[in-house]
Amino acid sequence: MELAHVTTVLEGLEETIISKLIDRAQFRVNQVVYEAGQSGFEGEPHRSLFGIRLSHHEQMDALFGRFCVPEERPFTQPLPPPRRTVHLPPSGLAITDFEPVNVTEAIRKAYLELLPKICRPGDDGQYGSSVEHDVYALQALSRRIHYGALYVAECKFREHPDEYGALAAMGDRPALVRKLTRKDVEERIVERVGAKVASLQTGVNTAVRIRIEPEVVTQFYRDAVIPLTKESEVRYMLHRQRPAPAPHASPREHA
Amino acid sequence: MELAHVTTVLEGLEETIISKLIDRAQFRVNQVVYEAGQSGFEGEPHRSLFGIRLSHHEQMDALFGRFCVPEERPFTQPLPPPRRTVHLPPSGLAITDFEPVNVTEAIRKAYLELLPKICRPGDDGQYGSSVEHDVYALQALSRRIHYGALYVAECKFREHPDEYGALAAMGDRPALVRKLTRKDVEERIVERVGAKVASLQTGVNTAVRIRIEPEVVTQFYRDAVIPLTKESEVRYMLHRQRPAPAPHASPREHA
Repeated sequence: MELAHVTTVLEGLEETIISKLIDRAQFRVNQVVYEAGQSGFEGEPHRSLFGIRLSHHEQMDALFGRFCVPEERPFTQPLPPPRRTVHLPPSGLAITDFEPVNVTEAIRKAYLELLPKICRPGDDGQYGSSVEHDVYALQALSRRIHYGALYVAECKFREHPDEYGALAAMGDRPALVRKLTRKDVEERIVERVGAKVASLQTGVNTAVRIRIEPEVVTQFYRDAVIPLTKESEVRYMLHRQRPAPAPHASPREHA
Repeated sequence: MELAHVTTVLEGLEETIISKLIDRAQFRVNQVVYEAGQSGFEGEPHRSLFGIRLSHHEQMDALFGRFCVPEERPFTQPLPPPRRTVHLPPSGLAITDFEPVNVTEAIRKAYLELLPKICRPGDDGQYGSSVEHDVYALQALSRRIHYGALYVAECKFREHPDEYGALAAMGDRPALVRKLTRKDVEERIVERVGAKVASLQTGVNTAVRIRIEPEVVTQFYRDAVIPLTKESEVRYMLHRQRPAPAPHASPREHA
């Protein structure tokens, strides 16, 4: 539980997010897959193909214990309990119920607004592939945003437990946002992400592969990934258990 | 159904395969996930976590109609019928049962042999993520190999129907392999793949992200991807329906 380690993990997740977005961009928008009742599934008059896929995928993932991991927050409910015994190291986090920090509804909304900016318009009939890649992209985003939220917030709390504790006790959201914000760090992340989008597509033969614009992804980081991470950080602060962790949970021992 | 289009699609799948391998390489080998009876799943004394994940994923994909697509050949059986009506354009292929061209057993074996060459040794406890990425990599490989096999073989057959027809009728596998082989094309593919592995990792911060060696992937293309594509091409030729397609199925109309 050191901020340097946490930011390293976050940085390593950027390539994953970008490559999932590039994979999705190989298919057209295929708007029909997001329309309720148009899934082509028997007995599914209300959900979209996208909604059904996301739900089926998370049902499967739940059996494998994915959502036992703090940063793996699901988009759908209800989910079955794991069929597997999952052994996790102590998280070092001071909450046990992670659902209050879950911002997947906002992630889903932001992602669906991003789609027409990375995918060509129209319909290529590749519905199954489109929603499959939607799920992978959403899961990569959820992991990054919630990992950032949980662990960055806990690190920052440990640096200034009294100040964060006081703001959280007052429920002062604007002050928490201000205190959690590091404009210089955000700018560095956005610039790095833009450089990676370009770099990951350097050798691409545009006759066979669709490229996505770095600016679209950097704007998405500015408008969605970073603000939602902060929103989830604020929620973590508001739901963090008191009192401060006992000596055995000190940062040093969890490093 | 033109060879130029088919090779374009194949080229576009290379980035997907490479990025899936890079994703998997972020985790250690985690050998235990491939060991029977070590899955941690209740009521699963015989299968490995990898086997269970692959099976669950394909069960889900089958419901969505994935395996109605000719090049999407499954690794596991039995699978449920699709719950979705899948509308596919005419494939232009001259077989209706695609399972005789299915080389997934060999793909799985080759992939598992590749793993220790791309992943660091040891165990990081990331079992769920490891097998999740195994499935994505295997599916990308299966798609590429079977797409290549089916469509390249059909294109080549249409160029020389009498010669391929005669060799297939005699069941002359070695002659079919020789006739299907284009050493210069294979060499170009391997070189291009190596360049992409390097290019996709150009901007990578090796402090936060594991790199894979281009040579390992080019060797995998040489030893597995290309030979298995040809094996599946041979099978296509041997199972292709006679007589040659009627005029309405000419290459021009399917282009």
